Amino acid sequence: MTITDAPEARFALAKKSARSVAALTSTQKSDALHAIADALIANEERIVAANAEDLERGREKQIGDSLLDRLALSSERIAALADATRQVAALPDPIGQVVRGERMANGIRLEQIRVPFGVVGAIYEARPNVTVDIAALALRSGNAVVLRGGSAAMSSNMALVAIMRDALETQGIDPEAIQTVDEFGREGANALMTGRGFIDVLVPRGSAALIETVVTKSTVPVIETGAGNVHVVLDSTAPDDWARDITVNSKTHRVSVCNSAESVLVLRDAAERLVPSVVGALQEAGVTVHGDEVVQQLANDIVPATEDDWGTEYLSLDIAMKVVDTLDEAIEHIDRYSTHHTETIVTTDVRNAEKFLAEVDSAAVYVNTSTRFTDGGEYGFGAEVGISTQKLHARGPMGLPELTSTKWIGRGAGQIRP
Amino acid sequence: MTITDAPEARFALAKKSARSVAALTSTQKSDALHAIADALIANEERIVAANAEDLERGREKQIGDSLLDRLALSSERIAALADATRQVAALPDPIGQVVRGERMANGIRLEQIRVPFGVVGAIYEARPNVTVDIAALALRSGNAVVLRGGSAAMSSNMALVAIMRDALETQGIDPEAIQTVDEFGREGANALMTGRGFIDVLVPRGSAALIETVVTKSTVPVIETGAGNVHVVLDSTAPDDWARDITVNSKTHRVSVCNSAESVLVLRDAAERLVPSVVGALQEAGVTVHGDEVVQQLANDIVPATEDDWGTEYLSLDIAMKVVDTLDEAIEHIDRYSTHHTETIVTTDVRNAEKFLAEVDSAAVYVNTSTRFTDGGEYGFGAEVGISTQKLHARGPMGLPELTSTKWIGRGAGQIRP
Repeated sequence: MTITDAPEARFALAKKSARSVAALTSTQKSDALHAIADALIANEERIVAANAEDLERGREKQIGDSLLDRLALSSERIAALADATRQVAALPDPIGQVVRGERMANGIRLEQIRVPFGVVGAIYEARPNVTVDIAALALRSGNAVVLRGGSAAMSSNMALVAIMRDALETQGIDPEAIQTVDEFGREGANALMTGRGFIDVLVPRGSAALIETVVTKSTVPVIETGAGNVHVVLDSTAPDDWARDITVNSKTHRVSVCNSAESVLVLRDAAERLVPSVVGALQEAGVTVHGDEVVQQLANDIVPATEDDWGTEYLSLDIAMKVVDTLDEAIEHIDRYSTHHTETIVTTDVRNAEKFLAEVDSAAVYVNTSTRFTDGGEYGFGAEVGISTQKLHARGPMGLPELTSTKWIGRGAGQIRP
Repeated sequence: MTITDAPEARFALAKKSARSVAALTSTQKSDALHAIADALIANEERIVAANAEDLERGREKQIGDSLLDRLALSSERIAALADATRQVAALPDPIGQVVRGERMANGIRLEQIRVPFGVVGAIYEARPNVTVDIAALALRSGNAVVLRGGSAAMSSNMALVAIMRDALETQGIDPEAIQTVDEFGREGANALMTGRGFIDVLVPRGSAALIETVVTKSTVPVIETGAGNVHVVLDSTAPDDWARDITVNSKTHRVSVCNSAESVLVLRDAAERLVPSVVGALQEAGVTVHGDEVVQQLANDIVPATEDDWGTEYLSLDIAMKVVDTLDEAIEHIDRYSTHHTETIVTTDVRNAEKFLAEVDSAAVYVNTSTRFTDGGEYGFGAEVGISTQKLHARGPMGLPELTSTKWIGRGAGQIRP
């Protein structure tokens, strides 16, 4: 790896490489991704050895079992990473797609075409698999990438980046298209956030605190991803089975992810009918229910909910439950506490279904489905860059086209403005 | 107008109104815009009187004739403003458009639909017409708006906002959907830039310095508009007439706008043939040419160009001219100095045309056309929100759809993730 003395020097190398990466054909890019997948498998020992250093440091720092698990790269995980890279290689190339086109009145042929951003920056934490994941998605969409993966996974990330860069070189592709600023620590992250002119877009992935820092400090355009305080609303007409199954699935199918439910709002009309059975099903699945006073009266073993519970993304086997008088009250509660990621309503009343779809202002709004469907894989994108919770550029699950920009090209024959 | 004691209180009112504005039908929104147009005409005297205060203050501060002209609202300009508002009323409503849709494997009907951003913030300078312009575009696309128009036009802006709010009220629309924070001065602008949770997107319009401040300080997502250091490249094969006409039109058709040319790069092969005639035509049109040494040798009355000239957006009857050895050198020069707004090449060589279109990374890239075509009106958008020079969300001329976001809606029948 080239040793350079400042993050900005690496940004400049990435930017320089971006022009050639943008010009790669779809075939060249997928060949490069297969070369990366092969190299990951071939270098398994080297990756595991580097990862062992991170795990050792993690254990010394007593970072806890769940973080250690996220950090660990086993032989199986490396194989899965190589597989995922091959899947990205198989995705349709968005670059060059004509988004719109027309013949202007004066004969100029105008087209809006999809082009790479240029240089994508990524700031993330602890999971070394993201290093390969983001690099592969960036490369498939014709972008160079600068990675900042957090100190906990530094040895693993450095090894993965070196292996990917070598693989690019074997394919005749400028290896500077994959950069890391991990060695610069916090300095590297700061440089990324202020790298205007070099970094075209910055994607933070990780905790709410990390995302908040990036969004607040960055002068580079950011795509905000992730945090999900997700709501399930049980309308007066919610069928018993759908209410129970959708709530339990939304909460327990995978508790640590952003599209898992964190709050249930039950319409008062249906509270007596639904609260006992839904709470019972949740508790049977190991969930602790934090309920308001009405919920406490209607079910057993309820932890009294405080104001904090309405705004908490538990990411654990906990859920908040509140009884509301009207659908408007439910929508206002969501407006106030939600991170506007995903919300669902269980109802058979078409007016309430349409009202909920129209008035709830979140990236994904459902009727009678689990919240767990907000996912690039489920939406058929083949891969997921993250789930955007902002309204600019991309909202909801992002696929490869969301890692691109557009430009207008016009072909004329001497036209001037009269 | 409601008097409130802090910008944030107005943001909250705008946000609250946004839900009802988002739900307005296309007809309700166009009726409201016609009511605003009528009110502008009916209140001409009041507007002119308020504007006189601004002009008086401007004269006292000796802000200069060109700024005074931009500030002035005559009877004709008010009529033009009303007309422009009626044109926005006639634009197709982007809200509710289904952008994508599919039936998921499990039967969920998934649609990505166009929705308003919610609250659009605008920070701009001196031109009171922008107050009506942005409010009309925001309203047509279902958004509430918070305006900050700069102290020079404060009296005019306050009058225009009051008139527009009254017009909304006559239509039964929440007048809080149009807010100004002009009275709060710099404080109001700062509050807009840090109004996360209230302001969904911020659009700066004005000088490069204003835009730079907003982009750097804002924690709200920004759409960067405007600055244009625009290039014309004259290739070895450029026909004499196209070279001359496109350069002169790109520079002189309207000098004060962002899509006007500021630099010409001439391929060395063609310098002897093209420089004298192009410089002659420019000088005849009143343009001062700032040239490098070769240009100085080939033409008369050339001001020697310095490094600064390559990076300057003159917005005046000045142009920089440089002779380059190769097309690659031209593209590298553009890469270094351009604001990536618009560039054009004059050539009959198809390889050079395609190379230029592929490798120049600007919002609009042309072959054999004037640079003046980068314009929402010319592109057929019916109106223009601004010209984005960033790569996120929108790039190039922005129409109404660029003032919207999307959301995913899913309709199911009890689907859960297995």
